[in-house]
Amino acid sequence: MRHLLLAAALLALPVHADEPVPIPSPGEIAAAAPARDWIAIAPSDLLVMDLAPDAKGKPRRVVIQLMPPPFSQGWIGNIRKLAAAHWWDGTAVTRVQDNYVAQWGDPTEKKPLPEGLATLPESEYVTPVKWEQQPDEVVHAYRQRPALALLSSEALDGSDPVVPLKVTGKEEWSRNEGYPYRTAFAAGWPVAGQGALNIPNPSKSLGEPRIWPIHCYGAVGVGRNMSPDTGSGAELYAVIGHAPRHLDRNIALVGRVISGIEHLSSLPRGTGDLGFYEDAAERVPIVSIRLAADLPAAEQPKFEYLSTDSDSFARYADARANRRDPFFITPAGGADICNVPVPIRPVAAK
Amino acid sequence: MRHLLLAAALLALPVHADEPVPIPSPGEIAAAAPARDWIAIAPSDLLVMDLAPDAKGKPRRVVIQLMPPPFSQGWIGNIRKLAAAHWWDGTAVTRVQDNYVAQWGDPTEKKPLPEGLATLPESEYVTPVKWEQQPDEVVHAYRQRPALALLSSEALDGSDPVVPLKVTGKEEWSRNEGYPYRTAFAAGWPVAGQGALNIPNPSKSLGEPRIWPIHCYGAVGVGRNMSPDTGSGAELYAVIGHAPRHLDRNIALVGRVISGIEHLSSLPRGTGDLGFYEDAAERVPIVSIRLAADLPAAEQPKFEYLSTDSDSFARYADARANRRDPFFITPAGGADICNVPVPIRPVAAK
Repeated sequence: MRHLLLAAALLALPVHADEPVPIPSPGEIAAAAPARDWIAIAPSDLLVMDLAPDAKGKPRRVVIQLMPPPFSQGWIGNIRKLAAAHWWDGTAVTRVQDNYVAQWGDPTEKKPLPEGLATLPESEYVTPVKWEQQPDEVVHAYRQRPALALLSSEALDGSDPVVPLKVTGKEEWSRNEGYPYRTAFAAGWPVAGQGALNIPNPSKSLGEPRIWPIHCYGAVGVGRNMSPDTGSGAELYAVIGHAPRHLDRNIALVGRVISGIEHLSSLPRGTGDLGFYEDAAERVPIVSIRLAADLPAAEQPKFEYLSTDSDSFARYADARANRRDPFFITPAGGADICNVPVPIRPVAAK
Repeated sequence: MRHLLLAAALLALPVHADEPVPIPSPGEIAAAAPARDWIAIAPSDLLVMDLAPDAKGKPRRVVIQLMPPPFSQGWIGNIRKLAAAHWWDGTAVTRVQDNYVAQWGDPTEKKPLPEGLATLPESEYVTPVKWEQQPDEVVHAYRQRPALALLSSEALDGSDPVVPLKVTGKEEWSRNEGYPYRTAFAAGWPVAGQGALNIPNPSKSLGEPRIWPIHCYGAVGVGRNMSPDTGSGAELYAVIGHAPRHLDRNIALVGRVISGIEHLSSLPRGTGDLGFYEDAAERVPIVSIRLAADLPAAEQPKFEYLSTDSDSFARYADARANRRDPFFITPAGGADICNVPVPIRPVAAK
């Protein structure tokens, strides 16, 4: 794997007319995408977690992007309230299980929650949709019913229960991946669907069509107790291993780590059951968790993601599935959806 | 995810006759498998890597299981020679890239290699096979031709170029996983196949049937420079993130970490290109790498794996794909092959 260094060196050389131009890597395709294909992430959708500095005094900041409607908005409303109440300040990372998750929250499990958090039903793990074929052959999914009925009107936060959602899936890289449902990208997020995602033939749906977000590397979800509990959002985890997709539809996903995941994934593994730290001194203190929107403007981190509806993303995904950049000799000819991470980058300060 | 602690507590309670018996988890199914379903791993197939102790003086041992024939035996022969020559002693972990690999070898890239290492052709990344249906409906794959022609007879090491290989794949959890080929388990290892794995109808093969090992979490492979170089085996890496299956058939896989992967996966990520450590002081020294067979008998670690041909494994895999143990409310109904890790455990000292 020293190769990629070599490849970088080769790319830095002038290209002679009689030499083949190297085929760009997926990362190079994303980097070359025009500015119009990049979508800024709103500060109200960014959660900024500052862990205590490491042993050498280096800061450890983890930035999480929260999901857009129609996914998991009840829990995400709770998370915004918890951040506004500074509830996580002084809590800790309590569990790190290899090839699975890093988890944080209140180690005592006794800290009172802020008032007004919603209790969410398990039906919120999935989003019922109906399909509408557009004249331009783009497939749109519309949220079919207001499944947020158990939410307070405050928690609804003015969001429209009918959310148009463009779903893009290319047959060649959106196969079923070992699971009995299809996968695709919707509004920048990897989703799976049953019945619903029989693109381009929605009429073949089996049962009520529905879609749900996927547990890929870096996904952030809501810890819970046994069913019917679905968790409040006060206890969160991030995936730090191979996609544990058996958790899909069994736990609420609320976002993904977009910066600083190494501050979670490289933590010592806990030696207790399920990777819990046995000694309180092993826990990693959380200094604060804030919405970026609640930070002073100058301190707000800014990120953007490559629109999954763009041609650039389609070419990027095709390149992920068919690596032809110089190191590769046999393209896979496909990719599971978690092997096509959505490109996300910091926005340079102006 | 506090749930699993709760689940464990529930399982510890006496079960009353009128209560449903909890459905066992995949791990419980494996733990309950009879002794005959567990296969001891030969000391000649175990590579023992001792890193320098950590900052608190704790030992860091990583144990790697090498692959059986017909996979990658040329590189594995080299690796046995490198270990016998103590070649890795004093080398280091030089690269840790998040959600990808930890890599080790000679940081100077100038250390002379032992004499007699084989140079392997890229054709060795795959194993051509022919199929033979047995009367009991078990499918066997036989190595079709001696593709080791470029190896010295010494490197061949007496291995039979025609290796019978039982391949087990259950349609319900062996779907194509986003990639245009099938997956299955062969002799305890996850493999993919093109044409070859159209079980139960091998006659539908497209092109020459062939199989190859898969880059799952923990897989160990051979670093290389640009094609046609295939690497000697002196530079190795372990997967510490989501399965990078685009590397399949592009790099030789030689084994998997079966103990101590946390000593690699929790290392600080390198801040250089591709996760290389920029400062030599960041590298993690390797004290020694030995074949277990070359250690004194009393010091040899002993492990066993659950036979992938056993009924116990079939039930374990089915449970991985259809979680019905108490925490789960919606079984996935499938699993990608890297989400069905082969159970491996230490053998208790007698």
